Amino acid sequence: MQTNKLDPNQETILGINAAYEIIKTRPNSVKLLSVLENKSSKRIIDLIVLANKSNIKILKETKSYFANNYGEQNHQGIAVTCNVRSHEGETYLDQLIEKSRVCLLILDHITDPHNVGACIRSASAAGVDAIIVPKDRACHLTPTVRKISSGATELIPFIVVTNLSRTIKKISSRGIKVMGATIESNTNYLDADMTGSAALVIGSEDKGLKSNIAKNCDILISINMPGKIDSLNASVSSGILLFEYLRQNNHAI
Amino acid sequence: MQTNKLDPNQETILGINAAYEIIKTRPNSVKLLSVLENKSSKRIIDLIVLANKSNIKILKETKSYFANNYGEQNHQGIAVTCNVRSHEGETYLDQLIEKSRVCLLILDHITDPHNVGACIRSASAAGVDAIIVPKDRACHLTPTVRKISSGATELIPFIVVTNLSRTIKKISSRGIKVMGATIESNTNYLDADMTGSAALVIGSEDKGLKSNIAKNCDILISINMPGKIDSLNASVSSGILLFEYLRQNNHAI
Repeated sequence: MQTNKLDPNQETILGINAAYEIIKTRPNSVKLLSVLENKSSKRIIDLIVLANKSNIKILKETKSYFANNYGEQNHQGIAVTCNVRSHEGETYLDQLIEKSRVCLLILDHITDPHNVGACIRSASAAGVDAIIVPKDRACHLTPTVRKISSGATELIPFIVVTNLSRTIKKISSRGIKVMGATIESNTNYLDADMTGSAALVIGSEDKGLKSNIAKNCDILISINMPGKIDSLNASVSSGILLFEYLRQNNHAI
Repeated sequence: MQTNKLDPNQETILGINAAYEIIKTRPNSVKLLSVLENKSSKRIIDLIVLANKSNIKILKETKSYFANNYGEQNHQGIAVTCNVRSHEGETYLDQLIEKSRVCLLILDHITDPHNVGACIRSASAAGVDAIIVPKDRACHLTPTVRKISSGATELIPFIVVTNLSRTIKKISSRGIKVMGATIESNTNYLDADMTGSAALVIGSEDKGLKSNIAKNCDILISINMPGKIDSLNASVSSGILLFEYLRQNNHAI
């Protein structure tokens, strides 16, 4: 079985869009583009042209190579091998929040790598500008997080801050609406005004939002659940709230 | 470390709502209600009264018992031990689709237990009437599915059918709108009329909807993603689409 061995500082990203974005935004970190043989849609040709311009090595691989390495993942016949992206710091955030329009996802002490990886994936699909997490008692960019995110860790800035409560105050002071999701709120998310720049704060599944985080949010919202359980996976909550945000903003983040 | 040993036919369900529902709907399958000591909210007292009426054994447990057994899960101080629920067959479905209002989630050959478990959890929170999956080449109620669903497998009927394509035709013939989610559709989900009885069909992440399934749907819809990746986890897609369904139907399934 032929498999693709990576060193620990490398990562494989699957899918046409993700590969295109990564080659466009940081071509120097890309080592290899693998293309499933006999695949030649317009989007794949555009990708090969871009990779070629960026002097990236391109290899054609067989169907069994893709099956062996990427199994049931949605690879679309494309894999990019690149250096892993590391996290960003507070300076990056300070620049980001000066933008006229911004959408952020803040994870309040989520420690489960599956949840963090899935949240990053949902945020990347929604076009969020960055993920923000606290330095301590929180999961950062581990190998599991990278795997579960389906490559989204390479595409979205992941900002680690020292004091999350202080960061939230700073974000709010820039006129970015900080919305904390908590089952304890009486405001259903559909009744909340989500228009404009926003930061969505998601708590851990067991503890929810910490009180010092909740009290610094501009608004607290909940997802009304008519069913028999009243909790959702953190990445599902993120997805529902972020796509409602997109709806209210006519998909213009 | 004191842990709660279960036999393979038993399952532990966490959380106040889930415990209440399971004791209410099938008390005879419940073996034990564990309550975190010193917890005495109105909802917990209601639950204890119900369990007592149903002749269910109730044990007070310490904080460290809950921490050892349920770690970071959102247990709310409540655990119910019960016999596992098995899947339902086509007769069950035939009765269900005669209801005047129904909402179904159909999983088209999803084989990953994490995805199936998370889809069941999202569906249960949204109040879906049943999950439907095909008999072959699909993941059913495995221990991993039960664990990932956070107990939702005990609360929502899981129907296994022999021929999914035929089942979809039957559902559609009863006036239930069958909506297939596929990235290949040009109809954004926000532009689709989701009012009334509906069945949402979600495909696997690698293959999407099978062609014989897609062609029998009444409408195909996609989730427009403005971000850098164009795929979502199946449970996140299910969550976004089911909660948009709830929004369009004013939360009245």
